Amino acid sequence: MKSKGVLLVISGFAGTGKGTLVKALLDRYDNYALSVSATTRQPREGEQEGVHYFYKTKEEFQKMIEQGELVEYARYVGNYYGTPRAYVEEQLQKGKDVILEIEIQGALKIKERFPDTLLLFLLPPDADTLEARLKGRGSETEDVIAQRLARAVEESQYIDQYDYLIINDVLETCVETTHQIIQAEHFRTYRNVEFLESMKKDLSRFVCH
Amino acid sequence: MKSKGVLLVISGFAGTGKGTLVKALLDRYDNYALSVSATTRQPREGEQEGVHYFYKTKEEFQKMIEQGELVEYARYVGNYYGTPRAYVEEQLQKGKDVILEIEIQGALKIKERFPDTLLLFLLPPDADTLEARLKGRGSETEDVIAQRLARAVEESQYIDQYDYLIINDVLETCVETTHQIIQAEHFRTYRNVEFLESMKKDLSRFVCH
Repeated sequence: MKSKGVLLVISGFAGTGKGTLVKALLDRYDNYALSVSATTRQPREGEQEGVHYFYKTKEEFQKMIEQGELVEYARYVGNYYGTPRAYVEEQLQKGKDVILEIEIQGALKIKERFPDTLLLFLLPPDADTLEARLKGRGSETEDVIAQRLARAVEESQYIDQYDYLIINDVLETCVETTHQIIQAEHFRTYRNVEFLESMKKDLSRFVCH
Repeated sequence: MKSKGVLLVISGFAGTGKGTLVKALLDRYDNYALSVSATTRQPREGEQEGVHYFYKTKEEFQKMIEQGELVEYARYVGNYYGTPRAYVEEQLQKGKDVILEIEIQGALKIKERFPDTLLLFLLPPDADTLEARLKGRGSETEDVIAQRLARAVEESQYIDQYDYLIINDVLETCVETTHQIIQAEHFRTYRNVEFLESMKKDLSRFVCH
């Protein structure tokens, strides 16, 4: 029984450690591939084409939309962000579990279009921890932190549409739990329809005549 | 985040090793409780009250049905078999994952009544292996073996209503996979509604006014 890869989304509030979790999954296990987004925003210092993003002009991005080359896309603060379809499909066919680290709206759009997508939401153990982590970064102003927390409140209204909740308290436990949830998903009956059909066919020679 | 126990059913064709799998889960991990069925059939040699079954008269069993004390029940070959509700609920409340080792019809009835029930179906790697295992037991006549195989064919029509398929090829792998699937289930969003609600409430103090 070898199912196709699982397409999965990891979302979470700013400051819950999505990036760290995704990096740990990619480093430790060889079954994951990270989907790289396309964007029209300018590369920041240190960012690399094809690693952090595929950088596109607005015209190129528009063409990708028109030709159906994006699984989902959205516009934030004047820039487009999207998930290129070709890479995702290629990796799934190879049996890789493809991770999308995207926002809630994109996640829900993907789930609507591809109901087999596994939606995971990463949560802090409690609100205090979230606040402390955002402040602890030391890189944002009070205002930005307040905005992020307000956004978390807003985002929390959509969490019940996610399949699983994962708490990032101890990172080690969180990585293992996430991996376990994704691996269990491979055994879902609807992901093994071909195997089941061939088993039924195989068994049918035992029918009493 | 501590969810209630998971109610789960392990079904499978005769000869796929359900009993061995269930025993291994109970022996190795402390989070499982096995539901003991009530039956009107006579105890066989070596069987113990409260371990293999709760033995009931037809009148007692009928009373249990009338008083809603059974989660499900069915009649086979003139005898009643059923799952007593009290023990199941008590164990789930304690946080135990309760295993029911029951037939497909009972499993589907339970799923209808309690949609959160996790249905696992144990399969042999292929039809040849199933036949070989049944013959290898050496305890059944050719006729009985043919009947069991025919029954497997019949049962296979219902497997797609199960949540997960587990292959019993190497027992060790099978036990671990089953445990992993059941543990992942605890993180389902709908099993953690209380936690999610308290998180939302906790976060609401960050709302911008």
